[in-house]
Amino acid sequence: MNPERRPWVVGFSKGSTEMRALLGNKGANLAEMTQVLGPDRVPGGFTITTAACVRYQEGEGEMPQGLEGQIRDALTLLEEESGKRLGDPDDPLLVSVRSGAPVSMPGMLDTVLNLGLNGRSVEGLARQTGDAHLAWDSRRRLIQMFAEVVRGVSAMSFEEALIAARNESGVEIDSQLDEAALRKLVTRYLEIFERHTGEPFPDDPFSQLIQSVRAVFDSWENDRAITYRRLNGIPDALGTAVTVQRMVFGNMGERSGSGVAFTRDPTTAAPIPVGDFLLNAQGEDVVAGIRNTEDLDDLQRRMPDMHAELIDSLTRLEAHYRDIQDIEFTIEDGRLYILQTRGAKRHARAAVQFATDAVREGLLSRDHALRTIRPGTLTALLHPAFAPNAEFEELTRGVPASPGAAAGVIALTAQAAQQRAAEGEDSILVRSFTSADDVAGFHAARGVLTAQGGKSSHAAIVARGMGRPCVVGASEVKVDPDRGTVTIGSRQMREGDRIAIDGLTGVVTADEVELVRPEIDDAFNEVLGWADEIRTLGVRANADTAEDARHAIDMGAEGIGLCRTEHMFFGADREELVREMFIAGELARRERQHADGGESGPLEGEFAEGLNRLGEIQREDFRDLLEVMKGLPVTIRLLDPPLHEFIPVSGFERELSEARERGDKAGAGRASVRLSVARDLEEVNPMLGSRGARLGILLRGLYEMQTRAIVEAALDVAAKTGTVPRVEIMLPLIAFESELELLREGVDRTITEVLRGAGAEMEVPVGTMIELPRACLVAEQIAEKADFFSFGTNDLTQTALGLSRDDAERVFLPEYLSRGLLPTSPFETIDIDGVGALVRIAAEKGRATKPGLPLGVCGEHGGDPASVEFFHAAGLDYVSCSPYRIPVARVAAARAALD
Amino acid sequence: MNPERRPWVVGFSKGSTEMRALLGNKGANLAEMTQVLGPDRVPGGFTITTAACVRYQEGEGEMPQGLEGQIRDALTLLEEESGKRLGDPDDPLLVSVRSGAPVSMPGMLDTVLNLGLNGRSVEGLARQTGDAHLAWDSRRRLIQMFAEVVRGVSAMSFEEALIAARNESGVEIDSQLDEAALRKLVTRYLEIFERHTGEPFPDDPFSQLIQSVRAVFDSWENDRAITYRRLNGIPDALGTAVTVQRMVFGNMGERSGSGVAFTRDPTTAAPIPVGDFLLNAQGEDVVAGIRNTEDLDDLQRRMPDMHAELIDSLTRLEAHYRDIQDIEFTIEDGRLYILQTRGAKRHARAAVQFATDAVREGLLSRDHALRTIRPGTLTALLHPAFAPNAEFEELTRGVPASPGAAAGVIALTAQAAQQRAAEGEDSILVRSFTSADDVAGFHAARGVLTAQGGKSSHAAIVARGMGRPCVVGASEVKVDPDRGTVTIGSRQMREGDRIAIDGLTGVVTADEVELVRPEIDDAFNEVLGWADEIRTLGVRANADTAEDARHAIDMGAEGIGLCRTEHMFFGADREELVREMFIAGELARRERQHADGGESGPLEGEFAEGLNRLGEIQREDFRDLLEVMKGLPVTIRLLDPPLHEFIPVSGFERELSEARERGDKAGAGRASVRLSVARDLEEVNPMLGSRGARLGILLRGLYEMQTRAIVEAALDVAAKTGTVPRVEIMLPLIAFESELELLREGVDRTITEVLRGAGAEMEVPVGTMIELPRACLVAEQIAEKADFFSFGTNDLTQTALGLSRDDAERVFLPEYLSRGLLPTSPFETIDIDGVGALVRIAAEKGRATKPGLPLGVCGEHGGDPASVEFFHAAGLDYVSCSPYRIPVARVAAARAALD
Repeated sequence: MNPERRPWVVGFSKGSTEMRALLGNKGANLAEMTQVLGPDRVPGGFTITTAACVRYQEGEGEMPQGLEGQIRDALTLLEEESGKRLGDPDDPLLVSVRSGAPVSMPGMLDTVLNLGLNGRSVEGLARQTGDAHLAWDSRRRLIQMFAEVVRGVSAMSFEEALIAARNESGVEIDSQLDEAALRKLVTRYLEIFERHTGEPFPDDPFSQLIQSVRAVFDSWENDRAITYRRLNGIPDALGTAVTVQRMVFGNMGERSGSGVAFTRDPTTAAPIPVGDFLLNAQGEDVVAGIRNTEDLDDLQRRMPDMHAELIDSLTRLEAHYRDIQDIEFTIEDGRLYILQTRGAKRHARAAVQFATDAVREGLLSRDHALRTIRPGTLTALLHPAFAPNAEFEELTRGVPASPGAAAGVIALTAQAAQQRAAEGEDSILVRSFTSADDVAGFHAARGVLTAQGGKSSHAAIVARGMGRPCVVGASEVKVDPDRGTVTIGSRQMREGDRIAIDGLTGVVTADEVELVRPEIDDAFNEVLGWADEIRTLGVRANADTAEDARHAIDMGAEGIGLCRTEHMFFGADREELVREMFIAGELARRERQHADGGESGPLEGEFAEGLNRLGEIQREDFRDLLEVMKGLPVTIRLLDPPLHEFIPVSGFERELSEARERGDKAGAGRASVRLSVARDLEEVNPMLGSRGARLGILLRGLYEMQTRAIVEAALDVAAKTGTVPRVEIMLPLIAFESELELLREGVDRTITEVLRGAGAEMEVPVGTMIELPRACLVAEQIAEKADFFSFGTNDLTQTALGLSRDDAERVFLPEYLSRGLLPTSPFETIDIDGVGALVRIAAEKGRATKPGLPLGVCGEHGGDPASVEFFHAAGLDYVSCSPYRIPVARVAAARAALD
Repeated sequence: MNPERRPWVVGFSKGSTEMRALLGNKGANLAEMTQVLGPDRVPGGFTITTAACVRYQEGEGEMPQGLEGQIRDALTLLEEESGKRLGDPDDPLLVSVRSGAPVSMPGMLDTVLNLGLNGRSVEGLARQTGDAHLAWDSRRRLIQMFAEVVRGVSAMSFEEALIAARNESGVEIDSQLDEAALRKLVTRYLEIFERHTGEPFPDDPFSQLIQSVRAVFDSWENDRAITYRRLNGIPDALGTAVTVQRMVFGNMGERSGSGVAFTRDPTTAAPIPVGDFLLNAQGEDVVAGIRNTEDLDDLQRRMPDMHAELIDSLTRLEAHYRDIQDIEFTIEDGRLYILQTRGAKRHARAAVQFATDAVREGLLSRDHALRTIRPGTLTALLHPAFAPNAEFEELTRGVPASPGAAAGVIALTAQAAQQRAAEGEDSILVRSFTSADDVAGFHAARGVLTAQGGKSSHAAIVARGMGRPCVVGASEVKVDPDRGTVTIGSRQMREGDRIAIDGLTGVVTADEVELVRPEIDDAFNEVLGWADEIRTLGVRANADTAEDARHAIDMGAEGIGLCRTEHMFFGADREELVREMFIAGELARRERQHADGGESGPLEGEFAEGLNRLGEIQREDFRDLLEVMKGLPVTIRLLDPPLHEFIPVSGFERELSEARERGDKAGAGRASVRLSVARDLEEVNPMLGSRGARLGILLRGLYEMQTRAIVEAALDVAAKTGTVPRVEIMLPLIAFESELELLREGVDRTITEVLRGAGAEMEVPVGTMIELPRACLVAEQIAEKADFFSFGTNDLTQTALGLSRDDAERVFLPEYLSRGLLPTSPFETIDIDGVGALVRIAAEKGRATKPGLPLGVCGEHGGDPASVEFFHAAGLDYVSCSPYRIPVARVAAARAALD
């Protein structure tokens, strides 16, 4: 088509939602609504296409040939339909000119209202509306807006003139200016305009219109818009459309008004329209909330015909868009206009209810209904909450980090929390920040509150993993563990005082608040049932204990994708045993290395003995867990944390100084050797140090002990229940295929030994975490030795991005997010371009070696809807996440399958 | 071919080196040598092919059909050629049976010697050799070796019998046993054999031979061999060949002897054969060094005909193999046999000399001559060394970490070293281990000695980078900085005492040793000249100062690929300024973030002032450096280290306690605020923390200051010298394209400002380090904003492998290397499968965006020959390494181009 013959302009009656690329969001939506409700119900107008904008940019600011003529034609049509004319001194047509890009760029592009008002038509508007104040105020606003947007005049001079006018009139707010004052002010404004631009304000309405269109085109290239596009990855070549629409007025008397309405209640999804309405008012008055609004019943009482038409429109819109609609309407002198409709934001409860209702009503298919639910919001339904009507004083508000509410006495250390738990008392662990040492406290406490950290701080992640409510970064909280005090703002509290936190809102209070624990209701269950039928991605849980496992099953887990064994080492009753064992193991290792270069050496006495004792304990733990899981798959990860976490310097420092105080020379000597080992093991970068598989390699016998405990526990459960558990053993932090080969040899040998000893048979797949970039890049080699892969996307993110989570979140990640360098934290939603690329590489290479290789994910990302969508697309078999997020993952996986 | 008709056996006269896959290394080499020297000069024999071994394994231990017959035929031929017969009671043929895989597997497979000796032929051997002791000792050894290798009998019983025999004879060593004792011992051995195997020792020589061949085949599948293959990636399917060769005896009287010889002197390459010789002796006596050997002149004197034949053989072998040969020879009763030839190991000096000589002689082409040099050895020619004839007491020997020798007084701290330097005194920095705080001490000292750490510890890497001689991991060295003492073994020394170290050997001494500084001699220069003509990879230097740069140019650098600016911040005179500046910057940042979310804010007073002052200093540093580089490219990396390194906690702790002691309340308050900032900035994983580009983003104005200093310095130099410097600015640790975009904007703006202010024009490319896996994976996006890439393979290795260098080297890397889990440290030679894959991905993606994008490497790997070879293959443009390794890199790059 010859570009000069292009239809640069499309009337509302000719477009539809599908034409978004050409008409922009706004233009396309108005056109679609016009089709649905008919031309009488939507103020008329037309859209100048993005193609015209692109052509304008290419032409370096020259209007595309033919465009002005087409605008004039469209305007003529609009005048005919509305029975009004632009600039008419009696009954003028006013129009708005708005930008509308094909993708949302809120606030980035320009708008001009009240176009068509000039020295004559303003009088006509005053007469028509009977509101001279409105007419002159509109004229005043047009001049300023036009000056700013179209001519780039600073707002300053206009604001000064406005202030002067208020002072002259002795009033305090603009709306108190009377007609005379406004007339005078308009004159001042016209002078200002001319002084700054060197030209008089254009009285010709068409010229106003054309200049405004150019200004919107130009706004596509302003710095703000360019930056926004860059940060959001929006192509520069899209261009913006310009929508010209007749303006209607809700303030033309007692048969006029404005309001907003929902087709159903957005909190409950009850199928009755609700809304707010103001008589004789413009839309902005409704939003501003200055006057008390009326509800739709009031509207029915005042204008039953209008109400009936509104309900009719709402019904038609919901039926058309197949979703709860949130609309704006204006009644102009007894005629109803719908200005906008969009999908209503709703509470999770309403989303679930609507989905099931809509299917029952035949409004939506099950698939379509699922699409109306945003999975991320569902967590709101899964945690205890402050009772809806509870009243309390908010002491402070931190960052909501793990949803749910909790109450208990303040515990300032993990030990204190454990002691309270032992005494049967609920506690909240309150700390400046947390580290691995505090993990036992997370278990023992009902919730966690920290003064520092963000949504992916240690506290936040561990708490979410355990489903403990958690508020972090509550900077007004000052903790003094030495004195046993907590100060929140001006309030002084002591360890043992009661507080409550809400991890969904970040609220902290010292008042007694009733907590309610929502259950998965019928509607939610129905939705989850659909999800399970639709999704192809499996959903497992990260669960370390039988209690976690029970919860996971309640939430619908199909297995355990990650059972961390380190928590079993950190229990208070085992601390001493574990410490002694690791010291012995490390000392033995050193001896061996000095003796023969590490080529051989028996499993040394003290270490072996410690391993055996711990093995017995672990066997019991595993037994409980496997029994609960009733033959569902359970993936158990062998020990992972840095060696030094088990041999803390602080412990031996205390031991040494105590021995010295006692005058116990032998004890001091012993403590001092151990302190020196502990100090040697302290690491510069523990994240990249002696952990994971490296631990298994350094301390021979460790993984064999764990393997033995696992297989023996499985045999115990099989014997007791008659159901054979499906255990899978997983090796962490593999970088080199040789590590996996070496460790797997020991694991396989142990499995065979135990089974042979028991005369039993059992399949025990042995797989590996994929959590280092190298592992992804050599996945074809690693797959040869692995029965499955499980992506540890937390560590993969840390290494691929070179970001220590703990450090990044304290210092530079907040700065990156606030400055728009990153759209979201890569620890919340997977970084698809980087970490995601590694996942895809590993999946492809792994399956090149073993076509059916099972692939899972067991990082925090497994419960994040956007990440789940990626994992589905990458062809993974399952995600594993904390029990609390399983319903979210189920729905997210279903949506991914639908997309 | 029907497998049964296969030629399973190949005689020496029919094979060649190219048949290595079929004949194994040993068989192929003997065959080749037989072609070169003729069948009379090499003891005859034949090789049973790897194909036979593979077939044997497939047949689960059944001998391939036809094999025995072929062996018998080959043996008959050998008997005819040698005029001796296997098992002949008068003049028996003895043969060896040796394994020989196609790739070297030293010590992994089995060998049997003296086959053919039985109760009768032993007497014949005794008569022929006139040495009954030899004959009976050979028989004894055969029985034991056969029992162990072929029948798996433990050595224990034989050793016990041997000890008993010694005791009976009242002698102390085996060779003192007389014939009678040996005859008795053989009888005992035969009894032991029969007792353990249930069968008599096989007297049939052919049966001995066939059983031995089977044993060698079986040894391919022993555990040791399997493990070795697994660790070295050798396919199981290769199989081993078996070489059967006539044994010759150098101890058959005064016309017999054994020796080793080189075609040229392996220390100097002087073109005269040299060697060691023993009359009437076997080869092992020469190696054992029990008797004093004679040289080739002595051989000439004793047996001029044999000497002439030997020289003739040496000449032919060198001409054939075109390299210095290292041979073993035996003279059996007036007949010369060459047993083995191989390329001679040689000192770097000889390697270089030979290469140039060989080209001059027409023996080798230039390309071929270059191939005879192992680039890694060349460092020996580039550093000061202990004078060759120096005598001294070796106090201890550590790990040689950075080549060269150095002497000076002991300095226990960086400060002490700096003070000595200021006083014009040479010092050696002696520490338990080093960290970033010690770097100033590396500059000031002549060499570094540490008690801990390996070849890629902090000390080793920094020292190599600066070309400082360094010995690490000298575990006998105990440092007590508090007392100012150093104990080495039993020797007590004090700070200020003189020591000397040799970083090439690891030797530490307290004696005065003369140091000599070798220069690049003519031969070396000639070789480097060839290398420069051949190589396509550029070679630049990592150099931070004008002094480094001068050295780099002397070594042949074509530019500077990495100028680190952090050393400019760590200078003693700047410490205070830098610390204050960063504190101010960090406080300003916090203020800004609290005020407005970090969106804007002026560059705050104190920080800006500090930046300006430091900018002036940096400008001078850059000026000196650029002047030295005379228009060659200089890539300057903006500040990289973790923020907290500039704000050390220890400094403020001292300041605080000093202020308190003084009773200075204001000072204490000030110190306490600063201490708290410093503590906040301490990081869990500093490697993954607030460093690199993150620093530039957190502290606004920092990179602009550095950019300004660089461009102003370049303009200064251009004005002064008339040569325009080629500066390139490099941004470190980029993970996200948004970081590069943001920072580049500031850098580009500053460049433009400075140039505009000076009215000058200059190209200043701005590029980025590629040192994070993510950067590699999104290189196509990063390339859009980068004028060049420089791979930081140190950090890329740390992140891709999830290994903290500092931690890995202290604890698990030594264990991994000693247990064969890794072939070499990935910090010495690049991990091609993992890190190398990332480099290839980034190179490909980067050039997809910008086809000519310049790509370099500036990690430690840039000076490692194996890594250089990879970088060449990956299509990079240049490597950059420490000045001392530049000649190595030049030769390595040439070899890579040749391959």
